[in-house]
Amino acid sequence: MANIKVIVAGPRGRMGFEAVKLVHNTEHFDLVAVIDRKHDGGNLSDVEGFQGIDAPIFSDIKECFSKVEADVLVDLTTPEVGMYHTETALQYGIRPVVGTTGFTKEDLAKLDALTKEKGLGCIIAPNFAIGAILMMKFSQMAAKYFKDVEIIEMHHDQKLDAPSGTAAKTADLISSVREAKVQGHPSEKETIPGARGADVEGMRIHSVRLPGLVAHQQVLFGSAGELLTVRHDSFNRGSFMSGVKLSVETIMNLDVLVYGLENIIE
Amino acid sequence: MANIKVIVAGPRGRMGFEAVKLVHNTEHFDLVAVIDRKHDGGNLSDVEGFQGIDAPIFSDIKECFSKVEADVLVDLTTPEVGMYHTETALQYGIRPVVGTTGFTKEDLAKLDALTKEKGLGCIIAPNFAIGAILMMKFSQMAAKYFKDVEIIEMHHDQKLDAPSGTAAKTADLISSVREAKVQGHPSEKETIPGARGADVEGMRIHSVRLPGLVAHQQVLFGSAGELLTVRHDSFNRGSFMSGVKLSVETIMNLDVLVYGLENIIE
Amino acid sequence: MANIKVIVAGPRGRMGFEAVKLVHNTEHFDLVAVIDRKHDGGNLSDVEGFQGIDAPIFSDIKECFSKVEADVLVDLTTPEVGMYHTETALQYGIRPVVGTTGFTKEDLAKLDALTKEKGLGCIIAPNFAIGAILMMKFSQMAAKYFKDVEIIEMHHDQKLDAPSGTAAKTADLISSVREAKVQGHPSEKETIPGARGADVEGMRIHSVRLPGLVAHQQVLFGSAGELLTVRHDSFNRGSFMSGVKLSVETIMNLDVLVYGLENIIE
Amino acid sequence: MANIKVIVAGPRGRMGFEAVKLVHNTEHFDLVAVIDRKHDGGNLSDVEGFQGIDAPIFSDIKECFSKVEADVLVDLTTPEVGMYHTETALQYGIRPVVGTTGFTKEDLAKLDALTKEKGLGCIIAPNFAIGAILMMKFSQMAAKYFKDVEIIEMHHDQKLDAPSGTAAKTADLISSVREAKVQGHPSEKETIPGARGADVEGMRIHSVRLPGLVAHQQVLFGSAGELLTVRHDSFNRGSFMSGVKLSVETIMNLDVLVYGLENIIE
Repeated sequence: MANIKVIVAGPRGRMGFEAVKLVHNTEHFDLVAVIDRKHDGGNLSDVEGFQGIDAPIFSDIKECFSKVEADVLVDLTTPEVGMYHTETALQYGIRPVVGTTGFTKEDLAKLDALTKEKGLGCIIAPNFAIGAILMMKFSQMAAKYFKDVEIIEMHHDQKLDAPSGTAAKTADLISSVREAKVQGHPSEKETIPGARGADVEGMRIHSVRLPGLVAHQQVLFGSAGELLTVRHDSFNRGSFMSGVKLSVETIMNLDVLVYGLENIIE
Repeated sequence: MANIKVIVAGPRGRMGFEAVKLVHNTEHFDLVAVIDRKHDGGNLSDVEGFQGIDAPIFSDIKECFSKVEADVLVDLTTPEVGMYHTETALQYGIRPVVGTTGFTKEDLAKLDALTKEKGLGCIIAPNFAIGAILMMKFSQMAAKYFKDVEIIEMHHDQKLDAPSGTAAKTADLISSVREAKVQGHPSEKETIPGARGADVEGMRIHSVRLPGLVAHQQVLFGSAGELLTVRHDSFNRGSFMSGVKLSVETIMNLDVLVYGLENIIE
Repeated sequence: MANIKVIVAGPRGRMGFEAVKLVHNTEHFDLVAVIDRKHDGGNLSDVEGFQGIDAPIFSDIKECFSKVEADVLVDLTTPEVGMYHTETALQYGIRPVVGTTGFTKEDLAKLDALTKEKGLGCIIAPNFAIGAILMMKFSQMAAKYFKDVEIIEMHHDQKLDAPSGTAAKTADLISSVREAKVQGHPSEKETIPGARGADVEGMRIHSVRLPGLVAHQQVLFGSAGELLTVRHDSFNRGSFMSGVKLSVETIMNLDVLVYGLENIIE
Repeated sequence: MANIKVIVAGPRGRMGFEAVKLVHNTEHFDLVAVIDRKHDGGNLSDVEGFQGIDAPIFSDIKECFSKVEADVLVDLTTPEVGMYHTETALQYGIRPVVGTTGFTKEDLAKLDALTKEKGLGCIIAPNFAIGAILMMKFSQMAAKYFKDVEIIEMHHDQKLDAPSGTAAKTADLISSVREAKVQGHPSEKETIPGARGADVEGMRIHSVRLPGLVAHQQVLFGSAGELLTVRHDSFNRGSFMSGVKLSVETIMNLDVLVYGLENIIE
């Protein structure tokens, strides 16, 4: 089978930087170009941090798509240009794997129509960490059988919000299948306020913040005599790359719009 | 909806004892009789440990089925009588939930035919711990996306075999979907033999044995920048009861033979 | 060295029952008598649950101490008789290891004087679980070097108070050495109240309550790039017995009153 | 109290880079100079990665010590120059905190004599991670009371040796106080070789290797009904800095040679 030809947009961003390395290091992927506001007409191997990674740089996306033959666009730019890049790629017959957020319902409807017209897949993923997505999926599955659940999420102490977005999303997914229940003893008392954590329909969420931590979450399900735990530890941004890789591989066999990686994970 | 009428066979065994209490304490279940080699003609409430649990005792299973109207038989006896009990129940129009082992392929084929003939469900489950079954199911699902896996199972120090049966079964399930891979650095060396654990197609299993422990297993999946962990802790025999309860509820809507609880868990 | 001769008071209580088995099963201990309000003049081996454990039963403690030669009294009775038993033992030259609570300052002063007068040791321990005591001791030691601490305590869902007494005591011990600090980001916000747990001088305590759990606590210390965790899991009452054993062994070399097992653990 | 004046040798190395940032960001420390083979006579703020950190650069250590008034030298260079730097610092009345290895017994004897002569402290630390040192210290303390121990160490899959040096050192420390014991059931069997891990005087060590992991170790102590766990997670090199900071603060009150951070941690 021929290698998959990939263009990366946003190579100097933190995600884009990892994506360039991923595409470069994956045997059945070829990095055929990058799209960058800077360095138009240059070669990536001359840009600091990319020594030895040969790829032409384009600032104009249409010029890039006209001159370079490609299968997939990995777009890790900004919400401002994400929609334009995605639409343009489809029009040029290139499948978009998009990590930017901010798509409106109208945007998604438009892209959906376009994928059908072109018979090409399109993946838009707010979260590329497969481990985190599986943690949420497993939690939702377990909640059908265990209605007593507590979530402990742990992050570095520079995080502003508690609970984390992932914990809130996990609780939502669990709520969608869990038989409602107020947990704990009916007469339980907090001798110090907050001890029992945040209450989400009777479930409890606890937010730990410590220097040294990165991003960790465990979901605990208890039942007579047993405990089932699903845990995800994210140590660095590299955790997003497994999802980018899977998306590039999967999109070659898609002809619809997929929003959210959970929909291509079985 | 009417309550489910349940007969328990083997009430004085360790599993049976828990099952009697479960049926007694579940609002939508009714304990209508028990089958026991001893105490024929008596009442369970007179047997030590069962004070206040009213149910007639039969030693002859056919007499029991003739005299007592029931929906489900929960059989937690021995392999010797398991097949006889299961077959007889189906013939009397009672759905069997069976925890005994030792069924042969011929037994299962015969029971399969009988369920079809009678239009009744039958559940045979070597393991009723839903948490353990979900741990194995999730591990199998995760192995599609993470090919680097290690299993750490931990048990009390009176256990004879290492690794545990559950760990071996988990590794089998993972192997059935995992792309084969020799894990670790190609040049890694054990400076003390055994440090890297048991090798199952490149996966590693580690068996911890300590006094105080009961039965615990964690399955770790690693990938660049992230770790996904599925863990099950079994603290006592009560952990089997969630599976018995689910089986009694589910069997009312079944008309086939189900072998293994994993097949009624989605 | 001769075996240590032990009398157990309160053999039919939950702790006393475990203590009798411990003394019986420890090679260098001899169970020489038990003190019980019931069964006076009988033998323990005739009491249900104690088959095969030979020891005379006394209801009167003075009669017991007069007739039986002993080194140590293990008292696991009630606060009402604890002081009387302890004082009487010392007067008869027997070293008391006491698990009952409710001693007043005056009681302790009186016992302290008596131990000095008799040149005998006396150990009073509100908590015999060595693992829990070490967890607290280690936490206090670590807090000198790590001022960012969070405690996660996890118990069965029948527990009424949150946080647990052990968590509160651990926080106190930490506070006694920890440089005061408000942890987390100065601008952090709880989007759901309670997410950040109970606040004890800037430290946070989180109380998890789930069926299946027994009694568990972890203390987490974070610092740039690292996390140090001390964890104790108590699975059943057997966890108290290591402390009873250590006390019986240690008291033979003591000639003072020791209050709290932490004072004989180095 | 006046700030502590610090010179860092080896600022462009990985440890040195972190140390420069630590000294710069600590309120009661002043970075007064750096020693570097390159950039002699320049200023650190002109070197890439150090923007805004003002400090003169010297290639000659004697010139540096002659011209700059300092309290402490933090030396994170190489074994080749470590001894020369340490000796020279003491001769100039500057206290050395040294992270390089390779000191011989003769070197240490010579430095010991020199510290006494000068009345100055000197700290040589092969490992600056306070968390890891406390984990080992706690493990050694716990082993007095719990003779059943298993170590699980987990590292990235590029590590060559199993078990890790830290695990081996922890086992040594435990062996020095633990009553010898062959753990597990006397008749236990490995159905797959290696399952029970590496045997160190009856203790077991298990080495997990997975991509994504960094450097983690847990030490488990089991006893009837309970489990005590001490765990250290090292997420990045920043974990060494707490030890460097403690050393700089402590050395001001020392007048002897200290080898190993465990000797200044209580």
